[in-house]
Amino acid sequence: MAVYTEVGDTELDAFLAEYDIGEAEALKGVAEGVENSNYLLTTTKGQYFLTLYEKRVNPRDLPFFLGLMDHLAARGINCPQPIHGRDGGTVRTLAGKPAAITSFLHGLSPHRIGVKHCGPVGEALAGLHLAGRDFALKRPNALSVQGWRPLFDGSRAHADSVAPGLARELGAEIDDLEANWPTGLPAGVIHADLFNDNVFFLHDRLSGLIDFYFACNDALAYDVAICLNAWCFEPDRSFNATKARALLQGYDKVRPLGDEERRVLPLLARGAALRFLLTRLYDWLHTPAGALVKRKDPLEYLAYLRFHRNARSLADYGL
Amino acid sequence: MAVYTEVGDTELDAFLAEYDIGEAEALKGVAEGVENSNYLLTTTKGQYFLTLYEKRVNPRDLPFFLGLMDHLAARGINCPQPIHGRDGGTVRTLAGKPAAITSFLHGLSPHRIGVKHCGPVGEALAGLHLAGRDFALKRPNALSVQGWRPLFDGSRAHADSVAPGLARELGAEIDDLEANWPTGLPAGVIHADLFNDNVFFLHDRLSGLIDFYFACNDALAYDVAICLNAWCFEPDRSFNATKARALLQGYDKVRPLGDEERRVLPLLARGAALRFLLTRLYDWLHTPAGALVKRKDPLEYLAYLRFHRNARSLADYGL
Repeated sequence: MAVYTEVGDTELDAFLAEYDIGEAEALKGVAEGVENSNYLLTTTKGQYFLTLYEKRVNPRDLPFFLGLMDHLAARGINCPQPIHGRDGGTVRTLAGKPAAITSFLHGLSPHRIGVKHCGPVGEALAGLHLAGRDFALKRPNALSVQGWRPLFDGSRAHADSVAPGLARELGAEIDDLEANWPTGLPAGVIHADLFNDNVFFLHDRLSGLIDFYFACNDALAYDVAICLNAWCFEPDRSFNATKARALLQGYDKVRPLGDEERRVLPLLARGAALRFLLTRLYDWLHTPAGALVKRKDPLEYLAYLRFHRNARSLADYGL
Repeated sequence: MAVYTEVGDTELDAFLAEYDIGEAEALKGVAEGVENSNYLLTTTKGQYFLTLYEKRVNPRDLPFFLGLMDHLAARGINCPQPIHGRDGGTVRTLAGKPAAITSFLHGLSPHRIGVKHCGPVGEALAGLHLAGRDFALKRPNALSVQGWRPLFDGSRAHADSVAPGLARELGAEIDDLEANWPTGLPAGVIHADLFNDNVFFLHDRLSGLIDFYFACNDALAYDVAICLNAWCFEPDRSFNATKARALLQGYDKVRPLGDEERRVLPLLARGAALRFLLTRLYDWLHTPAGALVKRKDPLEYLAYLRFHRNARSLADYGL
């Protein structure tokens, strides 16, 4: 929840003059997203979403992110669609920050995840993978296997303060995953952060996908593995195979997973759990108590990691 | 900026079933207000504002606040209008908190206050005072003269850490104001917090007044005195008499200030400056560094207080 940069009424009017979406009638800072400042913008022509990109987003990545949303929206994916200014561009400066306007998506994120959500999520993820196939720009995944050791190095010394033996367990895990991480899987654009707060539903139908600011190029099945972590564990940290089956069957309906992808899925899921564990651990150890951003418990993902480490095949995932 | 209480999609649907405003299509936590959790709610019928009342609001005050908004809206004041449920009520429980839905007001708060804003603010304040005359409920002003000494007692011991000599200056100020505070002035419902973030403009016309959660019964001229502090000082803390004249003339156009009100206005303005100084000082000393709420510099109001202390008549306020 965050609005880091305030936008004045006169600078907003000047900014909007570069677009053809009417005049500002309301601007509300939205308590959403931890990376950027987000505003809900109401103009004489409708509702829009205004994002000011803060320091955690590299401005050089913006053409990828905004180009991707444009590309996906043009292919029928319900995602925020960048609004082009009169000069054709989608990024300009507001209050000293790079800023963009997108369409406003209707829908609500499911708070209590049910099996009924998992099938549509699988379908939507596969749809996104297919729609992204011919997107021309590339962005490497800085949070995949080659990024984990440096990330861990920033937390290792204090990891055992979070749980005894954690440093040793994570070190062994990284050794193992580095040695066995699969290569050559079908790759393309992945969302890389498709958690429930990034998926909207309306009347039990999936109505939109948002927040493409972790999107990158990687193995498509790794995105499925992220979703298994994001959607299929219960609040008591137990794995719900019924949810996993629904998610995987939904995905398969639109883009069937290949044999090799199915074989390595438990390993990819283990890597995905480690990835979120490592960023949460880093934030846990480096965020001052009482800061604006709420810290999330890294140990949740330790439980997930252990589940995936013990899984042997897709039978453990309900298939 | 705050959303303290999260609202789930299913509990929102159940809550909305008690109203006749359609079904939820979007819910965005708004980074606005430090007292309550606020959401912008989009339904199939339009845009609304949803407020969950947090611990700093006394639930027993809600009939006053919501009744007042109803009363004012019915008399043509552009303020949030409470939406009545099917049972006629405006307050019910959501996510364990008292909650209400109001209409959504269009407009933007002016960030850089100009003379052009001050006349309309004066007019709107006077209009609010006239419209509130026959409102039946009463709420005493806990932050008027009798509340200042107890508030100061909570900060006195550490006041000098903020500015040397501050404790002594404020103590003398309270003695003086307690001895000379006027009584018997025309009284009624006052807004008591009409700062620029609580006033909306659209195309240089005042389009709405919001945030009635400090509203109470007190001398009407004290509300004018609050606005002199809120609207007429420059960023360098100097007083802008042109803005004050515009504000007072705007007010006079709708409800002319009486002779006694004009005579005591500098004293009321001094009291109003002290009131905001004291709450800011208290928050400054009692808010942990890095907390969700941004602390505001109390010394700004020390400068205002000294200006009003030296003012002798309305000539110092541009009249």
